[in-house]
Amino acid sequence: MAGKVIYLDNSATTRLDEKVLEAMRPCYLDDYAVATSEFGYSQGLEAREILSEARDRIAGSLGAEADELIFTSGNTESSNLAIKGVARALGAKKGRHIIVSKIEDFPVLHSAKALEKEGFEVDYLDVDEMGFVNVAQLEALIRDDTILVSVQHANQEIGTVQDIAAIGTLCRQKNVLFHTDATHTFKRIPLDVRKIDVDLITISAHTIHGPKGIGGLFVRKGTPIVKIMDGGFQEFDLRAGIENIPGAVGFAKAVELINDDENQLLKEMRDRIISLVFEKIPIVTLNGDRDKRIPQNANITFHHVEGESITLHLDMYGIAVSTGSACFSRSLEASHVMMAIGGDHERAHGSIRFTFSRLNTMEEIGIVVDKLAKIVEDLRRISPLGKTGGE
Amino acid sequence: MAGKVIYLDNSATTRLDEKVLEAMRPCYLDDYAVATSEFGYSQGLEAREILSEARDRIAGSLGAEADELIFTSGNTESSNLAIKGVARALGAKKGRHIIVSKIEDFPVLHSAKALEKEGFEVDYLDVDEMGFVNVAQLEALIRDDTILVSVQHANQEIGTVQDIAAIGTLCRQKNVLFHTDATHTFKRIPLDVRKIDVDLITISAHTIHGPKGIGGLFVRKGTPIVKIMDGGFQEFDLRAGIENIPGAVGFAKAVELINDDENQLLKEMRDRIISLVFEKIPIVTLNGDRDKRIPQNANITFHHVEGESITLHLDMYGIAVSTGSACFSRSLEASHVMMAIGGDHERAHGSIRFTFSRLNTMEEIGIVVDKLAKIVEDLRRISPLGKTGGE
Repeated sequence: MAGKVIYLDNSATTRLDEKVLEAMRPCYLDDYAVATSEFGYSQGLEAREILSEARDRIAGSLGAEADELIFTSGNTESSNLAIKGVARALGAKKGRHIIVSKIEDFPVLHSAKALEKEGFEVDYLDVDEMGFVNVAQLEALIRDDTILVSVQHANQEIGTVQDIAAIGTLCRQKNVLFHTDATHTFKRIPLDVRKIDVDLITISAHTIHGPKGIGGLFVRKGTPIVKIMDGGFQEFDLRAGIENIPGAVGFAKAVELINDDENQLLKEMRDRIISLVFEKIPIVTLNGDRDKRIPQNANITFHHVEGESITLHLDMYGIAVSTGSACFSRSLEASHVMMAIGGDHERAHGSIRFTFSRLNTMEEIGIVVDKLAKIVEDLRRISPLGKTGGE
Repeated sequence: MAGKVIYLDNSATTRLDEKVLEAMRPCYLDDYAVATSEFGYSQGLEAREILSEARDRIAGSLGAEADELIFTSGNTESSNLAIKGVARALGAKKGRHIIVSKIEDFPVLHSAKALEKEGFEVDYLDVDEMGFVNVAQLEALIRDDTILVSVQHANQEIGTVQDIAAIGTLCRQKNVLFHTDATHTFKRIPLDVRKIDVDLITISAHTIHGPKGIGGLFVRKGTPIVKIMDGGFQEFDLRAGIENIPGAVGFAKAVELINDDENQLLKEMRDRIISLVFEKIPIVTLNGDRDKRIPQNANITFHHVEGESITLHLDMYGIAVSTGSACFSRSLEASHVMMAIGGDHERAHGSIRFTFSRLNTMEEIGIVVDKLAKIVEDLRRISPLGKTGGE
């Protein structure tokens, strides 16, 4: 394990940019490191101002007003707040029916499941083999008592980008609130709330080289929602808890540091790994759409091989990748995303997710594919799954 | 505002210790800055190990096992999880009655209020003029359907330390779960879960020079509780969300840095400000108990003067203090704590909370009291409230 490790897993983007840490440093240690206060001493007012600037910058990057952005502890809390907060605001008034896609990330999916236990009814929207929801099917599911639709902007595993503009337009027509989890698209794919009819957007700092422990929820003005974290009156009385000012400032800096050139480079690395793999390794499938996918993601099934075996062998070469679902890989269950797009267990377990970041280079892509080709060939030769490897 | 500001408000303790930032740095930037993973690459396993060491150290400081500590985003979330998590686990089984003290901090108090809307019944325990709950009164309130008692270890405003050993013993006898909010006592006053019958303890990093955005909840083995933040399976499936490893490591470092000498020094600063104020300024009241109080807190009412006026005038001298409730000061409502201990609005509004930290010096205490004496005298001369100032 000596030498530099090549990270092509989700930790690539969760590593803090050193410039972000420098931006956070004074908030941790200097005079701004104080609690916010509307009354009282000057430093408390300065702290408020700094928090407000961070909020401005992040909200602005979505085309939103500063008071439409709630800071949370991360995308998990943001999605919990969106789903449960709307459900509790409207459950007794308008209805108790919610629609989410089958391939949502766990914060949305499990918040919906939790609401089912409280008497809400949830419909789980199918996706096609590329991971796209069908807007006509969504329309057919919307009822008079439907209060919320939650469809992610892009998938956490296979990277497919949904047509949230069309979904938003439909929801607006039907007078149903629309939440999208943009954890994996924020700052990677443009999203402007002045152009798209979306009411709630989950974002996070940890996927853009910002600090862990802070995220955000865009809440369009006038959206009915109640807080789920009770306590003080922070965040426009929508999220209690002492403000994490260093986190907010780090988040804003991370937002500032991403530009189109970077996203273009990620896209080139993504396209390069896909074309190299298809060139050098037989019997592989790209999971998710070829073109409508986030720039930082490639998800490939190497048939007749276990994904865990590939990750362990790559690890020996100092290369870090994840099996299909980074979060899910702990449980060794088949990914719900892979199953929803029609994959069987074999396809799900043979899938590897590559994530690209500004810390990667095109040279690394070549190295990784060379190792991969050898590992997959060896594994297919010895594996019981590989007995049909010569097909 | 030129020169060094003297912080005697709660921001004193919320400022990060530079050693904490140094401990966090590699978790942000180096190979450990990755997601945890049970399968797959080595760095993910190292990240898990680092998280586990941090958990060990923090849990150990309470006499707890590592798997009895859940990391959260802070004391607000910890108390929400304790109160709502137990309520939802036991509400349908054992009962829907909860008892909390009237002077709990907002995370506990407002979580209880939120549960009332869900059909739970809450009794609010009185406190005496020093802020102590009466254990006999608590016993009388416990019913067959009581599932949880929440009484803080020490008060956030007046610093009074409750006899949680006696409360714990009673709750254990009555087979009722006991939660205590130890946000303001953690590492300041010993609390050992092997000696005290407490089932759930809220702690936070931000009150001990640790990072904002991370806290913890001790959950004694076997305590019935369900998660309130849905998503992934992190934190023993009790709190979803990508682990904030830098935060956890910073929290552990903050725990390590506090020692008895420091707490002794805080106590001496506390006692010094109290004796100096009583010596130099007439018509003042110490709020909270004189002896059973946390080392880092003094809360004093300067009668016939508005607390806000004092903070503004001290600010001109570069001295930062808070009115009675730092969190509450934004709303200008009278503190619920001051009202519960029998204070009237005048006493509540004239109160100032001083918080001491390792960043303060005994010399600062003298400077602050000198300025205070002059300010209070001036304000009493000109204020309509001060017309009886010569009594």
